[in-house]
Amino acid sequence: MKQLTVYAVALSVSLIFAGTAASAEQTVIPNGSRPSKTASSSQFTGNVRHEPVFPATEEAPFSVSYVTFEPGARTFWHTHPAGQRLIVVSGQGLTGTWDGKIVTINPGDAIWCPPDIKHWHGATSTSAMTHIAITGMKDGKNVTWLEAVTDEQYQAK
Amino acid sequence: MKQLTVYAVALSVSLIFAGTAASAEQTVIPNGSRPSKTASSSQFTGNVRHEPVFPATEEAPFSVSYVTFEPGARTFWHTHPAGQRLIVVSGQGLTGTWDGKIVTINPGDAIWCPPDIKHWHGATSTSAMTHIAITGMKDGKNVTWLEAVTDEQYQAK
Repeated sequence: MKQLTVYAVALSVSLIFAGTAASAEQTVIPNGSRPSKTASSSQFTGNVRHEPVFPATEEAPFSVSYVTFEPGARTFWHTHPAGQRLIVVSGQGLTGTWDGKIVTINPGDAIWCPPDIKHWHGATSTSAMTHIAITGMKDGKNVTWLEAVTDEQYQAK
Repeated sequence: MKQLTVYAVALSVSLIFAGTAASAEQTVIPNGSRPSKTASSSQFTGNVRHEPVFPATEEAPFSVSYVTFEPGARTFWHTHPAGQRLIVVSGQGLTGTWDGKIVTINPGDAIWCPPDIKHWHGATSTSAMTHIAITGMKDGKNVTWLEAVTDEQYQAK
């Protein structure tokens, strides 16, 4: 019985160390291992593809993803409680804020949307657009979805 | 005097609001407006170009940059107090950890290096490699630089 207990303790200790080692190793998440998703029609207008790269974690509390908007596609109006950083990687897009500003965005442009600013982003009516989105997390939440961007609002540029 | 005071208060209030409005607007940092830098030879071996995209800020405490390594170029050994996320965007590269593992990395691969793990990353000996680096900040610091990766360590793959 004593020997069994010793084995059990040794096993527990080795499992704990294995767990610690695994979580503290550098990890590679290979290309092709993160399935693309079609973005929801209750949050996006038109055809939008979402490619997750990193989830928000306790150690790195921001998600990273590629998002591709077909021509005419865009997000609904929304805000981010901890802000959002975008980097355009291809195509041409638009981003608008509730104050009425709409800006054309091109590859290499970087956009900072501060916390709680109502905005939208998407493709132009004729070009697709892909951006990286790096979105902070606050109290377990990274976005508050609002109403659709109307055609009139989208075409106001 | 009373009127002057009223003016002064009104001016102060309008400045405060102007300041608030400016800092709380969505901002676009255009492509071409963030000069590339040659990485320091006391932290990198070979030719490495650093293209900053976003600095770490109070609201978004992680920097974002593109880094391009010419063939054979790599970082010195280093650790990150708040971890680092990499996304390979072109070429082919290598990343190694102090436990002796070296992994080949290709476009679309995503790498998570947890806090305080001693690692290096760079190009292969024949291909250049560009990655995005998203690096967390802790207590005002995002990296601790260590010794160079020797040719023997680099060629151990």
